[in-house]
Amino acid sequence: MMIKKNIENTTGPFVHSVYFWLKNPDNLENTNAFEKAIRKLIRTNPQATSNHFGKAAEVEERAVVDNSFTYFYMMIFSDLKTQNTYQTDPTHELFIKEAAHLWERVIVYDSISETT
Amino acid sequence: MMIKKNIENTTGPFVHSVYFWLKNPDNLENTNAFEKAIRKLIRTNPQATSNHFGKAAEVEERAVVDNSFTYFYMMIFSDLKTQNTYQTDPTHELFIKEAAHLWERVIVYDSISETT
Repeated sequence: MMIKKNIENTTGPFVHSVYFWLKNPDNLENTNAFEKAIRKLIRTNPQATSNHFGKAAEVEERAVVDNSFTYFYMMIFSDLKTQNTYQTDPTHELFIKEAAHLWERVIVYDSISETT
Repeated sequence: MMIKKNIENTTGPFVHSVYFWLKNPDNLENTNAFEKAIRKLIRTNPQATSNHFGKAAEVEERAVVDNSFTYFYMMIFSDLKTQNTYQTDPTHELFIKEAAHLWERVIVYDSISETT
């Protein structure tokens, strides 16, 4: 949480961002099941060097803001190769098995850091 | 870049993620102008505790992956209030003035960390 304000010390070279829209975002059984599955992934996954798991923030409505997602999960990997390894890692496959039936839509964005 | 793998030490409580699609992503003059403007923002902005600036990564094509954006810029703020301050900060307003004519589409996602 206390990350130095330092351009050299960005949050990582490979950022894997996943936005989830649950089928039933107001169903407590569904949200509990999703959160349990993703917390297991966070605890057990060996590839990520850092994680962020959150919900949509209650920000002011602006035309460019998409506030409709249920959950956001971001993982930092050291490089593209490690992200590729993650795709078939057992912890990732278990998460998909446990949680995929709960969401109706997922968007993934993958980004490599530029030198700043 | 070397962030501890520690669930307590996530990448921050408020994650502001912005995806940019430039009008002319292959025009070097345009990309240089965008990068110059965003680097100025990164160097001068007082609100963000951490940043990631990158391009779309060359990952394997999957149905859920949106690889079409030109740039991704993520800022970590300590809380929602600081993000609100950022919206009208002079460094943010200058960035919009210098770069907004270069993009055709922007999506912003804002997320607050959940306790993991």
